[in-house]
Amino acid sequence: MNLRLARTIAEARAEVAAARTRGLSIAVVPTMGALHTGHAALIERACAESGFVVVTLFVNPLQFNDAGDYSNYPHNLQADLDLCEERGVDVVFAPSVDEMYPRATRTHVDVDTVTEPMEGRFRPGHFRGVATVVAKLFHIVQPDRAYFGEKDAQQLAVIRRMVDDLNFSIKLVEVPTVRETSGLAMSSRNQRLSEAERQWAVALYKALEEARRVIESGEASAAVVKARAAEVLAEYPQVSAEYLEIVDPDDMHPIETITGPVRIACAILVGKTRLIDNVRATPHPG
Amino acid sequence: MNLRLARTIAEARAEVAAARTRGLSIAVVPTMGALHTGHAALIERACAESGFVVVTLFVNPLQFNDAGDYSNYPHNLQADLDLCEERGVDVVFAPSVDEMYPRATRTHVDVDTVTEPMEGRFRPGHFRGVATVVAKLFHIVQPDRAYFGEKDAQQLAVIRRMVDDLNFSIKLVEVPTVRETSGLAMSSRNQRLSEAERQWAVALYKALEEARRVIESGEASAAVVKARAAEVLAEYPQVSAEYLEIVDPDDMHPIETITGPVRIACAILVGKTRLIDNVRATPHPG
Repeated sequence: MNLRLARTIAEARAEVAAARTRGLSIAVVPTMGALHTGHAALIERACAESGFVVVTLFVNPLQFNDAGDYSNYPHNLQADLDLCEERGVDVVFAPSVDEMYPRATRTHVDVDTVTEPMEGRFRPGHFRGVATVVAKLFHIVQPDRAYFGEKDAQQLAVIRRMVDDLNFSIKLVEVPTVRETSGLAMSSRNQRLSEAERQWAVALYKALEEARRVIESGEASAAVVKARAAEVLAEYPQVSAEYLEIVDPDDMHPIETITGPVRIACAILVGKTRLIDNVRATPHPG
Repeated sequence: MNLRLARTIAEARAEVAAARTRGLSIAVVPTMGALHTGHAALIERACAESGFVVVTLFVNPLQFNDAGDYSNYPHNLQADLDLCEERGVDVVFAPSVDEMYPRATRTHVDVDTVTEPMEGRFRPGHFRGVATVVAKLFHIVQPDRAYFGEKDAQQLAVIRRMVDDLNFSIKLVEVPTVRETSGLAMSSRNQRLSEAERQWAVALYKALEEARRVIESGEASAAVVKARAAEVLAEYPQVSAEYLEIVDPDDMHPIETITGPVRIACAILVGKTRLIDNVRATPHPG
C-alpha cells in the first residue's frame, strides 16, 4: 500500500495493469505538480471513490503560450510525494518531458468552439496543448474516472467535449474549488505572489461574487452585470483584468441575456502573475 | 461462437468487456464495408492472432472530401456479414452515422507532416477525418491489435504516428495488398469500374512496377524514375494521374535521391473512379 513513483510510461502502465488484474477500479488525477489543498480535495475524492489512484505530475510545455510562465512554474516533487502518500495515493506518475515527448509531436487534439473565448483567446494554443496531453495521459493510465477542478472550468468543458466526441470510456468528476478564507482560489501560481499582491488578488473573487449577487437578485443583462463587476475590480488599481465573461456552463459561449444557469469567469494580472477563477450563478425564477 | 452484429456503441463495448473478462486478446479490423478479398486477408490474419475479433463497418462521412464519392460508396451489409461469419469474426460493429456522431463533432485529431503530400494534398480534410474516426473506434473497442492494409500506406503512416504520439496502447499490424491476377489492387471502389475501365486501371500497377524495376536496377534519381513511370501511364490515355510520388516509407515526405527503402505511391482517375496503390522498392546496395 506504499506510494510508488513511476518515472516512465512503461512503469505507469505496469502498475495500472497489475491493479486491473486485482479487479480494482482506476482513477487518475492529472496535475502539473506544486500540489496545494485544492489538489488534495481532488485526490481525497479520487481515493474515496476508486480502488487505485494515479496522480500525474507533469508540467506540459505544449500548453504554455508564455515561456516565462513555463520556466517559472513552481516545482516541489518531495512535498508533492508527501501529500500524495498521506492521502493514500497508489502511484505518482512524474515523467520527464523527453519521456512524454521523445520527439516533437505531430499529432494534436483540437476542440473547437468551447476553446474560443476567454483562455483560448488570451492563451493561443493552450487548449490544444491541454487536450493533447490529457489524451496521452488517458491512454497511458486508461482510467475509469478522471478528476478535475472546477477552478479550470473552461479546461473541464474542453476535456468533457473531447471525451464525449472521441468516445473515451472515462467518467469525468468535477470537484469544487477550494478557497482561502479571503476567497482567493487555491492555485500553484499563488506561490509567486508577494504579501501585498496576495491582498490585491482577492479582487478576482470579490468581482465574481458581486456579479453572482447581481444575477441572483434578478439582473438579466450581462452587460449590466459585467459593469458592476468592473466597478469592484476598479477598486484595486494594482490589478488588471484580461476578461470577465458570463458564459454558458456547457459550451462556454458568452451570454448576453441571462435566463438560466451561467458561469462567470475572470482572468487578472497581479504584478507578473496571471490568475483565473470562476463561479456559477443561477437567476431566481420569474 | 456465432457472429454478433452490434449496432450501438454500448453493444460493442459490452461484447468487448465480456471477451476481456474471459481473458481474450482483442483485435479490431476497421473498414468501410463492401468487403473484398483484401479485407478478408486482414480478417484472417486478425482471427489467427487474436482471441476475439471485431470488424467495424462504417462509411465515415468526415473523411470524404467529395460528396459524390460518399453517396456512391458501395454498401452490402449481408455480404459483409457472410464474409465475416465464414472467417470466424466474433462481432461486426456497424453503427449508424447518428450513433457515431450524435451531434457535430467539435473535436478533431490532426497529424501534421505525414498528411501533407499525396492524399493529403488531393483530399483536403481526409486524414483529419480518418484520424478522428480511428481514435473513436479505438476508444470504443479498446483493442490490443488493429489491422490495416498496406494499400492505404499513407493512412497507415498517419495512424502509426497518431498511435505513437498519443500513446495508444495498441499494436498496429500491416497486411500486404491483395491483387487480382492483372495486378489491380483489391478495392471497394473497383465495383464502380466498367469492364473497359477495369482493363485501363491496370495502368496504375504497371506504372508502379516499372518505377520499382528502375529503382532496383540502380537508378537513384526520383525524377528519372517518375519520368519512366509517366511513360507507362501515357500508354493509357483513358487514365489520368493525380500524383506519382517516391516517398520515405515512415514520414511520407517526397524523396529526390533514392538511397534506401522507399514507397512509390500513385493515384489515378479512371472515368469517375479514383484509385490509389503503392509498392515498396529497395535499391540494390552498391
